[in-house]
Amino acid sequence: MEILHDFSRGPYPARVRIALAELGLQYRVRFVEVDLRTGAHKTPAFRAKNYSGTLPVLELEDGTFLAECTAITEYLDHLGPQPRLTGLTARERGVIHMMNKRAEIEFLDPISVYFHHATPGLGPEVELYQNREWGLQMRDKALRGAAYFDHVLATRPHVAGEVFSMADITVVAGFIFARLLRLEIPAELHHLHAWHDRMRTRPSVRGWREMG
Amino acid sequence: MEILHDFSRGPYPARVRIALAELGLQYRVRFVEVDLRTGAHKTPAFRAKNYSGTLPVLELEDGTFLAECTAITEYLDHLGPQPRLTGLTARERGVIHMMNKRAEIEFLDPISVYFHHATPGLGPEVELYQNREWGLQMRDKALRGAAYFDHVLATRPHVAGEVFSMADITVVAGFIFARLLRLEIPAELHHLHAWHDRMRTRPSVRGWREMG
Repeated sequence: MEILHDFSRGPYPARVRIALAELGLQYRVRFVEVDLRTGAHKTPAFRAKNYSGTLPVLELEDGTFLAECTAITEYLDHLGPQPRLTGLTARERGVIHMMNKRAEIEFLDPISVYFHHATPGLGPEVELYQNREWGLQMRDKALRGAAYFDHVLATRPHVAGEVFSMADITVVAGFIFARLLRLEIPAELHHLHAWHDRMRTRPSVRGWREMG
Repeated sequence: MEILHDFSRGPYPARVRIALAELGLQYRVRFVEVDLRTGAHKTPAFRAKNYSGTLPVLELEDGTFLAECTAITEYLDHLGPQPRLTGLTARERGVIHMMNKRAEIEFLDPISVYFHHATPGLGPEVELYQNREWGLQMRDKALRGAAYFDHVLATRPHVAGEVFSMADITVVAGFIFARLLRLEIPAELHHLHAWHDRMRTRPSVRGWREMG
């Protein structure tokens, strides 16, 4: 049995939960809640598991701690006979990894920085340093990123092309985070919202909060 | 023939150049210089190739533009019969992707933010917004990251374990960037420097500037 250290309402943990459900691998994992709101992910004990102090972390049976959603997805996706979320050919793998990273740096991560730096975030006990101006810049970057993904989704059904991939999961996580913060994704981004409506019909996306 | 849009002295382009040399794939690629110092990577024409406006970008023969070093490495590493820089088993792939991402977020990327925000960076024509305080925070983060990697390399020969991988390449790129900025990696980080001295003996690391 592997252990997923996560926080059941967190947008980043949602990425791994959705990947687990897509791959039918929930049965492998026991969920252990780490309370972000008390800063449990910033303690020395947790940092020994993940230096970066972020969730989720997958603890393998051999004691290895796997952090970083992209790395955990990479691991899970290679447990079966062939990858299903990260591409088969060199070109597919390149494009999916690119669009996943772009979803992180242009949409999901800037929303997170906005949360931690330009809102109360996890509260004064956890947010020991805030740079409000940077946080507001990142909010604007995320909204530009949303417009970019709207443009992308005008001509293809999924973020990285024809098939569902981990890049879709990362943009879904951006929507989850935006909703938590009541950060509105502009309604005029029709293609993006139509894609998101389709994503929300997937059992993995509908059910991630109830997992574990 | 594929085209690598890059900048021959850039630390991020170095990652792809080193990967190309490690894989013996230089012959596939024609190098096209994009002058960072004039902001050529921030023009609408270049952003149509890579929305994020960063280098390098690999242009495939079918016209696909692959951005993000990790994605380009992923592509290149899957052109042969089996991956050599990103791991074979699920666990290897997970650990290498984690350590590569950690090398980015804890060392290389913060050095880049320091450069663009707390030094003159690429100059006033290119650096249209700077947040000096954030840049200085990122410098300190990168130095903490260096100490973390020193700790990691005390007990293993490479960043992600026993074998050379793309995670080593990313930490090497951090050293390249630090040297450009004359940002000193503390001499007391013996394990890190010993590892770096070993890396510098690799032909790929010795020769990346002369490629193309």
